[in-house]
Amino acid sequence: MRYLRVGPAGQERPVAAADGKFYDLSAVTPDITGAFLAAGGVSSVAGLPEIDIAGQRLGAPIARPGAVLCIGQNYAAHAAESGAQPPVTPILFYKAPNTVVGPYDDVLIPRRSVKTDWEVELGVVIGRTARYLGSPAAAAAHIAGYVLSNDVSERTFQMDESGGQWSKGKSAETFNPLGPWLVTPDEAGDPGALGLRSWVGGEPRQDSTTADMIFDVPFLVWHLSQYTVLEPGDLINTGTPQGVALSGRFPYLRAGDVMEVEIDGLGRQRNRLREA
Amino acid sequence: MRYLRVGPAGQERPVAAADGKFYDLSAVTPDITGAFLAAGGVSSVAGLPEIDIAGQRLGAPIARPGAVLCIGQNYAAHAAESGAQPPVTPILFYKAPNTVVGPYDDVLIPRRSVKTDWEVELGVVIGRTARYLGSPAAAAAHIAGYVLSNDVSERTFQMDESGGQWSKGKSAETFNPLGPWLVTPDEAGDPGALGLRSWVGGEPRQDSTTADMIFDVPFLVWHLSQYTVLEPGDLINTGTPQGVALSGRFPYLRAGDVMEVEIDGLGRQRNRLREA
Repeated sequence: MRYLRVGPAGQERPVAAADGKFYDLSAVTPDITGAFLAAGGVSSVAGLPEIDIAGQRLGAPIARPGAVLCIGQNYAAHAAESGAQPPVTPILFYKAPNTVVGPYDDVLIPRRSVKTDWEVELGVVIGRTARYLGSPAAAAAHIAGYVLSNDVSERTFQMDESGGQWSKGKSAETFNPLGPWLVTPDEAGDPGALGLRSWVGGEPRQDSTTADMIFDVPFLVWHLSQYTVLEPGDLINTGTPQGVALSGRFPYLRAGDVMEVEIDGLGRQRNRLREA
Repeated sequence: MRYLRVGPAGQERPVAAADGKFYDLSAVTPDITGAFLAAGGVSSVAGLPEIDIAGQRLGAPIARPGAVLCIGQNYAAHAAESGAQPPVTPILFYKAPNTVVGPYDDVLIPRRSVKTDWEVELGVVIGRTARYLGSPAAAAAHIAGYVLSNDVSERTFQMDESGGQWSKGKSAETFNPLGPWLVTPDEAGDPGALGLRSWVGGEPRQDSTTADMIFDVPFLVWHLSQYTVLEPGDLINTGTPQGVALSGRFPYLRAGDVMEVEIDGLGRQRNRLREA
């Protein structure tokens, strides 16, 4: 199954997609919430009213998460371009949950920013409370689905203005475009074998595969559950591959730029940059 | 005004306190939410039904925050005992919002933990959306009130198991006892002149004053608003003074210990430690 949220910001309607058609979930759930996902979502679109979403805005495909967890430097080549050794244990930091916006919304360059950067990432949405899982094999039962995520970052704020704690450069408004769809695991395929790419102004930037992750999705969910309680609807951004502006190979984002990210089977985002 | 939440975990009822009496707010608001605070709360208890809270559990005095922002090393003597120089700009990290529990709830020592530590802190609750405030003087209008907060920390998880990003040692379940009360600014007095203290097993640990903060409350709210959007109901933990176990002067917490923290006018917490 695929889930979407359709409508103006703050008034999105929950929608299921199957076989190229769209179905209104409003009679089933008020939103794509943790509670809806924990209850298993919907297993079939039979009996749901079809709706036309043409021309409407897409929101993020899940309601605002209770937490947005991010994994740092989870691709060896990106760690290298950032000037770091590959980590020996997952690096966790958080992003403010109010950064989450729709997949085609404008992204705002923060005031004073000169180093706003893109990061295409595989997002994992939790479907069942995960606390001290026994093994990575136990993770699958706790995952509601996968989603395309862009962990937009301001590198000066991240690296130079918070004593080395990264979140200050990760939490500006609009800094987490999400979607277009939440795809359930049965439809998403192997999360360890998805191509992921980004572009700025139509020119390629990142082009890699989740097979290059240092810590894979089952390991991450298991590992995080030893340190915190993951709840239904929480989002985990699993790290970005090489090819960001921080590498020095590309210019940072400027107002007027168009940034695109894509993951196999999870769709493509397109965001115009403008000044905050 | 003082706000409380009374009842079993997850079923707390909103309450106002004035002149030693307690008033049920259930007819006014479903909870002490950001929306309730943004609307100004209640200015008077006139007409509200009085209730008896004797013997009932107190929850955290606010509904689960959209974000818990934490300021690191905001007291020079604590930075020194942590082996760090005083910061030149506020250090921001986040704590998972589901760590927030009531002021007398048990606190769980995470599995594998050998370095669970206490941190008494002045908590600031946002009352009005703060985005690119013009100056620290503009902060006051965006603060709903003050609350006693304990930023419980696991030092190995924080320092050694996340590549230097602290949140992994800050986000275990029950790691943010909050309350007993949210006190509005008119009753809380000067947030820059409050004594704050902690004890373990009745023996003193921290004993300082918010006058020793490197970055004061108005500065912090203004500063953070340049990097992220603060929303009603968000919690800012403003840093802890010297006297934590990380200093090497005191043992870390163990199951069976009783931890207490206190701030002038904001009440006192008492939490028993037990194994997760």
